[in-house]
Amino acid sequence: MNGDFQQVSEFLDYEDELLVVSHFSPDGDAIGSVLAFSGILDQIGIKYILGIDDTCPNKYSFLPGFELIRDLKKQPLGRRFERIAILDAGALPRIGVAREYIEDKTLVLNIDHHFTGPYYGDINLVNVQACATAEILYDLCNALGLEIDEKIAYGLYVGILSDTGRFRFSNTNERSFKICSEMVEKGVDPCWVTENVYFNLPVDSVRALAATLSSLELYFDGLVCLIALDSKYKHSDSEGFVEHASSVKGVALATFIREIEKDLYKVSLRSRCRIDVATVARKFGGGGHLKAAGFRHKGKIGELKKDLLRELGDQLERHKISKDIDFIKETVAEDLVNNVNV
Amino acid sequence: MNGDFQQVSEFLDYEDELLVVSHFSPDGDAIGSVLAFSGILDQIGIKYILGIDDTCPNKYSFLPGFELIRDLKKQPLGRRFERIAILDAGALPRIGVAREYIEDKTLVLNIDHHFTGPYYGDINLVNVQACATAEILYDLCNALGLEIDEKIAYGLYVGILSDTGRFRFSNTNERSFKICSEMVEKGVDPCWVTENVYFNLPVDSVRALAATLSSLELYFDGLVCLIALDSKYKHSDSEGFVEHASSVKGVALATFIREIEKDLYKVSLRSRCRIDVATVARKFGGGGHLKAAGFRHKGKIGELKKDLLRELGDQLERHKISKDIDFIKETVAEDLVNNVNV
Repeated sequence: MNGDFQQVSEFLDYEDELLVVSHFSPDGDAIGSVLAFSGILDQIGIKYILGIDDTCPNKYSFLPGFELIRDLKKQPLGRRFERIAILDAGALPRIGVAREYIEDKTLVLNIDHHFTGPYYGDINLVNVQACATAEILYDLCNALGLEIDEKIAYGLYVGILSDTGRFRFSNTNERSFKICSEMVEKGVDPCWVTENVYFNLPVDSVRALAATLSSLELYFDGLVCLIALDSKYKHSDSEGFVEHASSVKGVALATFIREIEKDLYKVSLRSRCRIDVATVARKFGGGGHLKAAGFRHKGKIGELKKDLLRELGDQLERHKISKDIDFIKETVAEDLVNNVNV
Repeated sequence: MNGDFQQVSEFLDYEDELLVVSHFSPDGDAIGSVLAFSGILDQIGIKYILGIDDTCPNKYSFLPGFELIRDLKKQPLGRRFERIAILDAGALPRIGVAREYIEDKTLVLNIDHHFTGPYYGDINLVNVQACATAEILYDLCNALGLEIDEKIAYGLYVGILSDTGRFRFSNTNERSFKICSEMVEKGVDPCWVTENVYFNLPVDSVRALAATLSSLELYFDGLVCLIALDSKYKHSDSEGFVEHASSVKGVALATFIREIEKDLYKVSLRSRCRIDVATVARKFGGGGHLKAAGFRHKGKIGELKKDLLRELGDQLERHKISKDIDFIKETVAEDLVNNVNV
């Protein structure tokens, strides 16, 4: 067994209750990984508590074991743990309130595929080549010689499905497909999963999407696409809406302005070219990644739009972005940063 | 070699020019299969003409060899062929004008995964278990001992991607993923493919989607979802719009009414329950499949909606469809019929 896996194996040689957590705003890889890891613990025979500092989206409730994930915001644990396993969290603040359950002598296992600064775990099973944390857990199962049962298989499948954006993002590779093939062989119904996660939307979300798309505006010769949603729809999920703007042919920069409450906006930015939208976001007090970034803004939308468009126009000019560029090539050339919640 | 493959191998032992066609309204499996098959012919060293009775959607133009597919509507061939290979066409009328190139003595090779009545080919390489015609061509490559090069790999990948609805439909199986894994290994960039096929939309299509979703209406306690698009958008692609209606939580029957010209409508129906929408469509002079059907209607939209809703309500009552049913389970339980153009 490779040294990292050996360390994990020793970490799992434990009598007491283990805490297993992931990041807040949990996505399919966070939830799937927590569940797959719990399946691993089931097989080894370790007691555990699963917790996330958030309510897990109901669309994942079909997953075996989902009901065991505790919402730490609503049901805090009020104690500390000797050992904690943290899955899919690039940095410690990402686990939110769960940090309170760690003390100096707590042994921390960090399993992740994000690129981060200094690793925060006592044991770090990190592989930035993996398309999802689920992929690392698949390797762990094999290293430990465990059988992949239905609970593990569903967790791993959903993790890969979600983090590759349904096999869309540039982290999708031959291994993503190979593992999914094996998970289907182990009993995963890919149709059932995809219907639950992507095609079972509250009607309010669809109405919010209609309103958002109706607002579509193009600027700078179609290089910038702007969509917006007002606070009337503040209770609707708008995850992925910005992708509709970045899917328009010829668009280099996409912006989604969501009104959270009167005069408070959440702005998401996407780049399909060499412009670094994190730089743009930082000018407005936000941050993010090269291809996906965001910020919050207090004020009037008219001014926000004016300031933002001026900045985006400057960027287009500075980077000599014109209509002749093949934006798909630009998108594919560099990694699309996914699951960033910006 | 299995007998069917042996027959194909003999069919391909040919000096003259072979005609390769697929169905009109070509989808990713039609186009991908034609291109993959041409890659097979390249390797064997056979001359060929590729043709489809339609213009192939431009979103597939990134595929190696795409420019070789002739639009038979615009550029008819004006001659007959001794041998013709027909890919992905469940019945002969599906190839449209290409039928004119067949004479009595023409040897017809039919490679397909659709369930059809009597097979129309002299040689029929048909496998209804295959998720796409592309999967059968993959088996053919192996049977013939051919190397899967980039042209073949892209064709096969797009065929499977498209016919499984991005690994969504119930025909998605472990083999779909296994073959895609191998195609990625052979050089396919899955991100590049998906961006081109699904995320590079003309802005008019996005505006048409906005208009369609804004029209959303629910009936019968949310069991029926109706969306519509008027003829103002008649030049926009509306492929897949009906799926937005069937993706609404709690919806058993989805309807998309598209105005083609004044007082002429194309109606698409989808079922997520045991109601057979082909029966409904037949009452209005159309047809289709259990889960996906359609018809055309001449008249006023007000009356069309009234008549259609009365019929759908009757069906719900007759089949005792209520809100308590898990429509995802119903959707998965029976095959989703995809790529039906209805």
